[in-house]
Amino acid sequence: MIKAGIIGATGYAGGELVRLLANHRETEIVWYGSRSYIDRKYYEVYQNMFRIVEDVCKDDNLAELADQVDVIFTATPQGYLAGILTEEILQKVKIVDLSADYRIKDVAVYERWYGIEHKSPQFIPEAVYGLCELNRNQINGNTRLVANPGCYTTCSILTAYPMVKEGLIDVDTLIVDAKSGTSGAGRGAKVPNLFCEVNENLKAYGVANHRHTPEIEEQLGIAGNCSVTINFTPHLVPMNRGILVTEYANLKKKPDGSLPSWEEIKEVYDKYYGGEKFIRVLEKGCCPETKWVEGSNYVDVGFVVDERTGRIIMMGALDNLVKGAAGQAVQNMNLLFGCRESEGLELVPCFP
Amino acid sequence: MIKAGIIGATGYAGGELVRLLANHRETEIVWYGSRSYIDRKYYEVYQNMFRIVEDVCKDDNLAELADQVDVIFTATPQGYLAGILTEEILQKVKIVDLSADYRIKDVAVYERWYGIEHKSPQFIPEAVYGLCELNRNQINGNTRLVANPGCYTTCSILTAYPMVKEGLIDVDTLIVDAKSGTSGAGRGAKVPNLFCEVNENLKAYGVANHRHTPEIEEQLGIAGNCSVTINFTPHLVPMNRGILVTEYANLKKKPDGSLPSWEEIKEVYDKYYGGEKFIRVLEKGCCPETKWVEGSNYVDVGFVVDERTGRIIMMGALDNLVKGAAGQAVQNMNLLFGCRESEGLELVPCFP
Amino acid sequence: MIKAGIIGATGYAGGELVRLLANHRETEIVWYGSRSYIDRKYYEVYQNMFRIVEDVCKDDNLAELADQVDVIFTATPQGYLAGILTEEILQKVKIVDLSADYRIKDVAVYERWYGIEHKSPQFIPEAVYGLCELNRNQINGNTRLVANPGCYTTCSILTAYPMVKEGLIDVDTLIVDAKSGTSGAGRGAKVPNLFCEVNENLKAYGVANHRHTPEIEEQLGIAGNCSVTINFTPHLVPMNRGILVTEYANLKKKPDGSLPSWEEIKEVYDKYYGGEKFIRVLEKGCCPETKWVEGSNYVDVGFVVDERTGRIIMMGALDNLVKGAAGQAVQNMNLLFGCRESEGLELVPCFP
Amino acid sequence: MIKAGIIGATGYAGGELVRLLANHRETEIVWYGSRSYIDRKYYEVYQNMFRIVEDVCKDDNLAELADQVDVIFTATPQGYLAGILTEEILQKVKIVDLSADYRIKDVAVYERWYGIEHKSPQFIPEAVYGLCELNRNQINGNTRLVANPGCYTTCSILTAYPMVKEGLIDVDTLIVDAKSGTSGAGRGAKVPNLFCEVNENLKAYGVANHRHTPEIEEQLGIAGNCSVTINFTPHLVPMNRGILVTEYANLKKKPDGSLPSWEEIKEVYDKYYGGEKFIRVLEKGCCPETKWVEGSNYVDVGFVVDERTGRIIMMGALDNLVKGAAGQAVQNMNLLFGCRESEGLELVPCFP
Repeated sequence: MIKAGIIGATGYAGGELVRLLANHRETEIVWYGSRSYIDRKYYEVYQNMFRIVEDVCKDDNLAELADQVDVIFTATPQGYLAGILTEEILQKVKIVDLSADYRIKDVAVYERWYGIEHKSPQFIPEAVYGLCELNRNQINGNTRLVANPGCYTTCSILTAYPMVKEGLIDVDTLIVDAKSGTSGAGRGAKVPNLFCEVNENLKAYGVANHRHTPEIEEQLGIAGNCSVTINFTPHLVPMNRGILVTEYANLKKKPDGSLPSWEEIKEVYDKYYGGEKFIRVLEKGCCPETKWVEGSNYVDVGFVVDERTGRIIMMGALDNLVKGAAGQAVQNMNLLFGCRESEGLELVPCFP
Repeated sequence: MIKAGIIGATGYAGGELVRLLANHRETEIVWYGSRSYIDRKYYEVYQNMFRIVEDVCKDDNLAELADQVDVIFTATPQGYLAGILTEEILQKVKIVDLSADYRIKDVAVYERWYGIEHKSPQFIPEAVYGLCELNRNQINGNTRLVANPGCYTTCSILTAYPMVKEGLIDVDTLIVDAKSGTSGAGRGAKVPNLFCEVNENLKAYGVANHRHTPEIEEQLGIAGNCSVTINFTPHLVPMNRGILVTEYANLKKKPDGSLPSWEEIKEVYDKYYGGEKFIRVLEKGCCPETKWVEGSNYVDVGFVVDERTGRIIMMGALDNLVKGAAGQAVQNMNLLFGCRESEGLELVPCFP
Repeated sequence: MIKAGIIGATGYAGGELVRLLANHRETEIVWYGSRSYIDRKYYEVYQNMFRIVEDVCKDDNLAELADQVDVIFTATPQGYLAGILTEEILQKVKIVDLSADYRIKDVAVYERWYGIEHKSPQFIPEAVYGLCELNRNQINGNTRLVANPGCYTTCSILTAYPMVKEGLIDVDTLIVDAKSGTSGAGRGAKVPNLFCEVNENLKAYGVANHRHTPEIEEQLGIAGNCSVTINFTPHLVPMNRGILVTEYANLKKKPDGSLPSWEEIKEVYDKYYGGEKFIRVLEKGCCPETKWVEGSNYVDVGFVVDERTGRIIMMGALDNLVKGAAGQAVQNMNLLFGCRESEGLELVPCFP
Repeated sequence: MIKAGIIGATGYAGGELVRLLANHRETEIVWYGSRSYIDRKYYEVYQNMFRIVEDVCKDDNLAELADQVDVIFTATPQGYLAGILTEEILQKVKIVDLSADYRIKDVAVYERWYGIEHKSPQFIPEAVYGLCELNRNQINGNTRLVANPGCYTTCSILTAYPMVKEGLIDVDTLIVDAKSGTSGAGRGAKVPNLFCEVNENLKAYGVANHRHTPEIEEQLGIAGNCSVTINFTPHLVPMNRGILVTEYANLKKKPDGSLPSWEEIKEVYDKYYGGEKFIRVLEKGCCPETKWVEGSNYVDVGFVVDERTGRIIMMGALDNLVKGAAGQAVQNMNLLFGCRESEGLELVPCFP
């Protein structure tokens, strides 16, 4: 059995890790770290876990934890892990970091967008960006540190990746209009996240300055081997789970001046995703809906070619707490320890 | 492998059966019956099943189906199964009926409340009322027909059962105020179930005449060995899943004139439910919430003793599509075929 | 013009007062009191008021305010007003208190249920319980202090009042099962009120000990000229606005042993409410829904006679922020100053 | 008093007309047309109108109605009005058409997008496109036919209008990503609009082929005196009311090569909207939210200049049933009859 510890086990992403690992046949959680609830029973914080988890919450002592477990999941605020990670810890334990600390390779970009100094940039080069479908071959028994991608990011990148990789769109025209359920905002007690403020409401936020922007740009830039600068606009939607992205880009014309057809583009998506268990490229005429992936590790991707404007509209949907956070973290753990990649993730989406 | 057929596979309860059986290790669905969608791919009706179910929907020919499968789930309108069930079919196949046709032993009561003639009352005596925790020993390889209880009913009965069974409350004072999410209303296209009619709204319906009333009364009457007449008032709540019942009854006083304490009553609940995997009796001060059982087969039960009024307030919560329908149906199937009772039902509730 | 000040203008009830008074032809708000937002523009707190209210928020100095206005609305925490109210203030200004401080005549009952010492019990006798339809003749130019009723209370009392007043039910059997939207919980930043905790969830709370209980009991006791002890169980529903109460009581039989008919009871309701603008007694077969009163000052009341159990099920619905708080406060102000009682309250319910 | 008739009075837009006109001091509704509910009391269809509207629903006989009223509102399916409108009718009565029949000047465009033949194109030239703020001077006592704009359209056009009019953006790059509450889908009983299908879900629909597209293009083309071809992508959001549009376009650079500043663009918006009662241009850093305009006739508009990409992100929010339908229709009626333009529309947005 893989022994796992979670730092930040009582946030929404941490809670989802507990839910997923409860059905993982090769893993056992031995440390439920939660600074806010030390010594309280975990199920008192998440009553859904009554009679399933009997453990009490512990402190978030990373060094002590490193001696006791094989893998640590850090579902912590930005800067936390970077501030305490050491070579000694990494020699003892593998880390899957759900925060943004090691996602961005360019530390100056990280510091500019996050407004904090990076305390341990020396570990950035070895951190693997854990978008499993793209970087699977870099995540294995030798990997010590995985930077688990953000929720918006996973959805935004996977939706456009084949088109960028194959150079079929003009990346300078790429616009990502993203919509998210409210669990992405976390469990902190803030007025804007109160039921009455979110329910029956809709708004954009972080317009032109949301922190997931550079992460999308960097990864798509790697894919396309070019510099990518995009507009990314997140919106808050009155639902618990789910992210939907709608992406717009000018299609490059074919040598004969025509646009590629839906079928030609479908082949490109299938080239990259045809063998992927967790990415479903939808059939013609079908647009992704967040409900169809809820509770599961799937990303659904669809697209429409608009002959009138010459653009492609690409859409992607995932569950922000699963493929957008905890599910992908478990998928990364499976790769790190040589488990079947889908172990613990055979979740059938729940409808309605 | 147990071969299963579903009649009514494209309703919400049918869809939930498909979701649950997808992870059942000893069962294979070979017939997705749906009169409305014959020859259409099942995943076109429920896009969450894309790449999981490849079958097409078939007609609802019960006789033909009986030759091909080991068990049939009927998630059909009232009167459907009673109208077509035959001895020949029952000799070939086990049936778990999610409709009300064989739930009520007194056929006159059935006909009065449902307003239809019962077409095959000869099968009522052998039908086992499939509330697994109460009637487990009657559900086995010899059972041919299981009447799967209603969603409100399962919750209402289990919440009060130990108190009625032990004669601790005055059953004439029992009042059940029930609240349900909207999936209980089914997938029929009706104006009252439109989003804009349900959302931001709350109402009672079927006041004093809801069809689940006699089912609760009959089963609690059996438990208490007495006649039971209750008020049952359902309410429609703007959420997809979940039932919460709040039940009120006068506590019988102890010989010394005092009321039983919370702890004494807890012992009674534990006597009946202490060993039950799917019934969780909550700790003192804790009230059930529908969210804590969502997506799972759990029923959460809690109660408060009110010294001022001499009443007990009992509360129960379950997911109407799981323990209230498809989950319990699978639990019954497990008992019928000697599988582990929880096979396919090890679902951790999903929060948030 | 009546000059009005609001203490607690940035809570949900305070915000609703601002919305209602914006369309009141005889009132002008001159003081937006909000300790948390002093010197900030009111519309920065409630962006719906952009270009409608230009004022800044002020401190909550009651004594200073008393010199400047004709009426003060206090939408403040329990104990606040009782702690600072003086005879001098009451000689200068009328007060409509939306808190519970002066609602309960028996100060011992107040202190037991609220767990705080009452700091100015000397004003309790003169405070009029501002349920306008019942106490209209006590609210006029001579009244100095109105205790504006609670939201649950208004709904619970009005729904049962005619039956209790006329002695048609056995008050010892009265049970009030109440359900409320989330705005009743206020705008405080607390985890249980976060969107993801409330949405798709349903729970009872304050079971057997909610503070609105004694207020209902006292007022119904006055109506029935008897002692009333009830069960009152509130539930939190995933919607912004609206309260629905479902009340159960044994009907007293008529001398001939029969139950009163629906029509006979309707006459009783009409006797009390037939002339009331804001109380709508629904037609036979019609149950109240919160959506039908949303945004308005109406209370809708309906009932069903259950011959089987001998009980009446009474139902009432209102908008907790209007008739349950700010609307009733304005109605009281209108009575205090001799305005038309419905001035500023001619609000047509908004659907959907 | 202006006598008004409504054809389609029991749809959501028709219901909203009834709500608004109930508080209009110069109008009286004398005809509630609803083919589906002939002879039924209007309040039986919309229980919020109990004790407010006593009329029964009538047939939709336009010719008969023309003799009885001064203005007819048609809230009817596409093609209905075009199929029955005659010169004779127009000589008797003014018509405000909430359908799309006379919105698009180019009949070929209409027929292509709507897939139906236009039965009375002869009236198209005289129909005024009733976006009051833009075409106010064409709507007066001489106007016979007003084409009331669509909900998405009103929001999309007003959000970008000043920028297009002044030539400050490259219109070829304009992308409109729109999100709507579910009341926009109407009150028809369709599975995709059921509560359980919409709630906790989010999807795009009508991608690259939604019928509001040519209406936006035509009107912005008129504004910019150029041909406009855009991407317009609507999304269905789990809320009752509200539309939010997020629009992207490349800013034209100033002669010195720099981008215009937020303040410079604000001046442009103020030039067009500074005097408009119902259009609120938000302050810097403030993004529109649908909740802030709910129930009112306001459109809130805000924008962000993105120096990184050279784009402007423009955002607009309105209530689809008010400014997006019935409110604007009343505003048009006020202009037609010389009433104060805001009569009946002094609605303060309702929060929460």
